[in-house]
Amino acid sequence: MQPIRRALISVSDKTGVIELARTLASQGVEIVSTGGTKRQLAEAGIPVIGVSEVTGFPEILDGRVKTLHPRIHAGLLAVRDEESHRRQLKDWKISVFDLVVVNLYPFRQTISKPEVSFAEAVENIDIGGPSMVRAAAKNHRYATVLVDPADYADVLEKVSIGVDSATRRRLAAKAFRHTAAYDAVIAGYLTEEVAEESPEALTVTFEKIQPLRYGENPQQAASFYREPLAAGPSMATAEQLHGKELSYNNINDANAALEIIMEFTEPTAVGVKHMNPCGVGTSETLSQAWQKVLDADPVSIFGGIVAVNREVDKNVALQLKEIFLEIVLAPSFTEEALTILREKKNLRLLRWHQDESRYSRSPLQLQSVRGGLLVQGADVKMVSQAECQVVTERQPTVSEWEELLFAWKVVKHVKSNAIVLTKEGKTLGVGAGQMNRVGAAAIAIKQAKDEAAGAVLASDAFFPMGDTVAMAAKAGITAIIQPGGSIRDQESIDEANKHGIAMIFTATRHFKH
Amino acid sequence: MQPIRRALISVSDKTGVIELARTLASQGVEIVSTGGTKRQLAEAGIPVIGVSEVTGFPEILDGRVKTLHPRIHAGLLAVRDEESHRRQLKDWKISVFDLVVVNLYPFRQTISKPEVSFAEAVENIDIGGPSMVRAAAKNHRYATVLVDPADYADVLEKVSIGVDSATRRRLAAKAFRHTAAYDAVIAGYLTEEVAEESPEALTVTFEKIQPLRYGENPQQAASFYREPLAAGPSMATAEQLHGKELSYNNINDANAALEIIMEFTEPTAVGVKHMNPCGVGTSETLSQAWQKVLDADPVSIFGGIVAVNREVDKNVALQLKEIFLEIVLAPSFTEEALTILREKKNLRLLRWHQDESRYSRSPLQLQSVRGGLLVQGADVKMVSQAECQVVTERQPTVSEWEELLFAWKVVKHVKSNAIVLTKEGKTLGVGAGQMNRVGAAAIAIKQAKDEAAGAVLASDAFFPMGDTVAMAAKAGITAIIQPGGSIRDQESIDEANKHGIAMIFTATRHFKH
Repeated sequence: MQPIRRALISVSDKTGVIELARTLASQGVEIVSTGGTKRQLAEAGIPVIGVSEVTGFPEILDGRVKTLHPRIHAGLLAVRDEESHRRQLKDWKISVFDLVVVNLYPFRQTISKPEVSFAEAVENIDIGGPSMVRAAAKNHRYATVLVDPADYADVLEKVSIGVDSATRRRLAAKAFRHTAAYDAVIAGYLTEEVAEESPEALTVTFEKIQPLRYGENPQQAASFYREPLAAGPSMATAEQLHGKELSYNNINDANAALEIIMEFTEPTAVGVKHMNPCGVGTSETLSQAWQKVLDADPVSIFGGIVAVNREVDKNVALQLKEIFLEIVLAPSFTEEALTILREKKNLRLLRWHQDESRYSRSPLQLQSVRGGLLVQGADVKMVSQAECQVVTERQPTVSEWEELLFAWKVVKHVKSNAIVLTKEGKTLGVGAGQMNRVGAAAIAIKQAKDEAAGAVLASDAFFPMGDTVAMAAKAGITAIIQPGGSIRDQESIDEANKHGIAMIFTATRHFKH
Repeated sequence: MQPIRRALISVSDKTGVIELARTLASQGVEIVSTGGTKRQLAEAGIPVIGVSEVTGFPEILDGRVKTLHPRIHAGLLAVRDEESHRRQLKDWKISVFDLVVVNLYPFRQTISKPEVSFAEAVENIDIGGPSMVRAAAKNHRYATVLVDPADYADVLEKVSIGVDSATRRRLAAKAFRHTAAYDAVIAGYLTEEVAEESPEALTVTFEKIQPLRYGENPQQAASFYREPLAAGPSMATAEQLHGKELSYNNINDANAALEIIMEFTEPTAVGVKHMNPCGVGTSETLSQAWQKVLDADPVSIFGGIVAVNREVDKNVALQLKEIFLEIVLAPSFTEEALTILREKKNLRLLRWHQDESRYSRSPLQLQSVRGGLLVQGADVKMVSQAECQVVTERQPTVSEWEELLFAWKVVKHVKSNAIVLTKEGKTLGVGAGQMNRVGAAAIAIKQAKDEAAGAVLASDAFFPMGDTVAMAAKAGITAIIQPGGSIRDQESIDEANKHGIAMIFTATRHFKH
């Protein structure tokens, strides 16, 4: 147990600090403080000693240098069981700190402000604060460090009896999480400012949204975190309006659904199962769009995750209510729709935040591999008609063009190898996650059945040979969209020409694993 | 341009520091230094001033407090264009530092030592060093900060002409990457020590292995990073013996191949395409095991990634050479095998490090979603025969048991929904990444063709109803392994009993997305 006799308090987040200091003072704890915190405590009538009185050195350089002094840091770092340390403290008349209450002005808040200048951002980097937090946390064998008002109550209870070792250690770990997160945001900001694309060290930080019951499987512990600067539509910013807690797989699937819906501007609905779209429909009304999703694959949609890009009204709510769904994500719901859908106890309803920045997500996509991390930029590319090249004798018709670009938006988000068949703004077959391309095409065509005749086909990567086009022709496909770029492209083109199929190259591949 | 007249040097990594200091001194730069660095410079005959001479305060508490002094930090932090700052510097006779050369003893190295104690680890947390680095980096408008010997030469060239703003800013970004990484490792260590499973802030750090040409697609920039404590078999620690640079997709696929091969102790080979196993074979010799992979899916293995768990000898090398492969990963290769395989210019050969710790990978698996991060533990669970429950009238035979456990190891690593058919230690059909379970089964059975008769079937999650078992029975499957746990399990059990199929429940699900 370490009794608390002397405390150093300097906080940016003033929550609860008066109550904390008052209780400490009432129990005879001497309080040392700086700047704004000192003023506030003094105004509340709490006895407080200024840092300068301790150091015998004024606060200079507009407060840039005040606590960076041996009389403060020896008080934080002394090993009290060491005879030599005790003697030095005595010789220099330095008293130790038993409690350090410091939190840092979140640099993240500074850089989140609209139009913050580089100079202003840099000016907000705290130097003295992290030094005190780190020193006290290192010396947690003696010192207790508080960086979060949520921990004040726990420590206040222990002032008279002393703070136990487990608590001090737990708070020290939290203190280093505080400084690590602080510097990670600064490092990220500066690295972006100097346009360093592949830095020698990558340190990223996240804030907890919620612990999860488990991960992909019950034997895996899991949590969900938010990027410090998260904005725009995302599962990290979405608001849950109804239903049970989200699971790991829910979040993953819902994220996939959001990624797809972001591609579309017309009224669109998408159904996702196991990270793949099982149905996508686009139409003049959301009601019609949803009906297409339902028709696309009435088996897989059972227990699916649905995202839409228009307000869910009574009409759509009644349609959605008819089948078992895990999640419905929408930019908004009418009150009537909410009332209808809330009758389903297990259905999770989420409102995602629609805003201007359609691709406001972080530029870094992280994915763990054994012993390491793969980092890449998001695949935000979407080709326009003008960027595509018609490679066949026959040009696509106007409606084929529209359909091909629809199919292309879908296939981009299907796990590779991916083949998608669509007709009239509706997926007919989704061949996903196959080890060869013909296999993916076979799945999509089989699923489309007779409807394949007159449909279009999209492939996320080029055809290595002509066999997929031959298979498509047999099924009655009239137009194909694919990246092109195989050394045997001509085989595919010849095969398409033979059957009067219009084929366009995007010169953009969309692998997704 | 900021001329360099005074430097503060205090380094843990002494590489190049003598040359740096000598050149600085020869150009009239005043050098201030501490402890070991000061001693070393003085021994090399370089004029150097001790920190205590500057502060007028001794190094106390065994060096814990030496640079944490206003005379140092005002020299680092002063805004030289501010009249008031200039006056205060003059009043207090404080000189500014134009160059700060500080790097930190890697805490990672301390905790990597076998049997390091908690106290020893904590003792190695540097307090003064990060304060100087952070102060100089914040004040990069005037100061140049060096944390990496690799940057010395660049700055030395500029001593006489002054260091330009872009360089100072770039080095400041790197300095904060240095302190962020340092605290992230400390925070990670302490968080693990206090067994905090879902911390309020997660900050993780990685060291660059290599920039990649691009990510999953050419429009995505990408890099590959290593966990600071990476050990054991992994792509982060593997050694490339031959072939072109690895791509993003190569690393991802090779990682998937390694994950599978780690499950097996008998001679085994695995072929991977698009993150899924297209063939797995286990046998008495590696040569026979590889032949099974080849037979399993002769189409998909083309351009595949192969991992094996035995040394590749001449015989196996000759077999591997016969088809086009992207990568072969093995614990070792004989010299003859290397000679044979090196004839293939585009084939990448990698040696993975086999060691005791079969699951030594990081406990955290990171995966980005829009605006956030999903974090979970690795799925390291593998059931034993004793943990399984036979739910059918018929018990599996001895050879069926063996086959079922083989199939289970494979299906664990196939993207969900996953169904795998195997016979005699060889995969016959792999149904991967499907939006419904019957679809996955159909793919696996179709691929197995006539061989399905007498094979076993593994499913990564339970059957929601009896239809998959009925389909398996029709194909001639004799035994099934699955988690169980559906409210309609009895349908599946009845269906199995009707056809004399032996079915076992693992009570463990292996979703993988």
